[in-house]
Amino acid sequence: MTGQSETPLYLEDLKVGQVFESEHLDVEREAVLAFAGEFDPQPFHLDPEQAQASLFGSLAASGWHTAALTMRLLVASVPLARGLVGLDVQLNWPFPTYPGDRLRVSSTVQTIEPSASKPDRGVLTLVSETRNQDDRVVQRMTGKLLVFKRGELA
Amino acid sequence: MTGQSETPLYLEDLKVGQVFESEHLDVEREAVLAFAGEFDPQPFHLDPEQAQASLFGSLAASGWHTAALTMRLLVASVPLARGLVGLDVQLNWPFPTYPGDRLRVSSTVQTIEPSASKPDRGVLTLVSETRNQDDRVVQRMTGKLLVFKRGELA
Repeated sequence: MTGQSETPLYLEDLKVGQVFESEHLDVEREAVLAFAGEFDPQPFHLDPEQAQASLFGSLAASGWHTAALTMRLLVASVPLARGLVGLDVQLNWPFPTYPGDRLRVSSTVQTIEPSASKPDRGVLTLVSETRNQDDRVVQRMTGKLLVFKRGELA
Repeated sequence: MTGQSETPLYLEDLKVGQVFESEHLDVEREAVLAFAGEFDPQPFHLDPEQAQASLFGSLAASGWHTAALTMRLLVASVPLARGLVGLDVQLNWPFPTYPGDRLRVSSTVQTIEPSASKPDRGVLTLVSETRNQDDRVVQRMTGKLLVFKRGELA
């Protein structure tokens, strides 16, 4: 994390427009191949030659790998009390992630809505942009996350 | 795959309402822990005792692990020509995935839209439900996928 507290945050601590910046993370070629081999075994994620002839132009990481790496950065940069629990997520990948990329995630609070039925919690809408070393957005995600109120029973 | 051809499918081959059924896949406890350790290191995905006191009730897989396993099943069950390339995805997790679960994915064609600007392609909207051995939906995903027309230059 850069420049924010690690104190667990409750609903009352959050403000619309609040930003969380992650650390950087390097995307290793071996990790790209291992993830694709296990979860997304398509030629453009596994074979440099076939990737060259594909839409990606060269070996590209699975979008789900970008999503998983983003989650790793989010866990360390968005310190919600009781953890990050996603209720609903919308995501897209405007640009591929390539081996050797360095990723970071910037997350902005869009809305904070107390639950109508459960007084101890609410829903946080967080927009998380994952960028590479050239500042290109490789993933844009809008996530609805569970958030707890301070002082309710755990 | 069960009951469908492995012939690569082009836009013209797809029909609204068409269903693709995947094989089964077993969720191993070691894999749940390894994925969480690498990408989603939160107590309810890593520590059985802390998971028991969490919303999940016992050690649960990361939602991103469910998403990655779903992708593996989709790659083998939805044989789009030139592969599965997601443009935009919306997903949620109505029920957790637990170690020992057996998952399968059922995908239904919702819409098929030829591109207005690029005559060789279109967008397929596919609704994919990932279910466990008790037929509970653990992930519901609506994905917009790139789909190519037959007979255009590759």
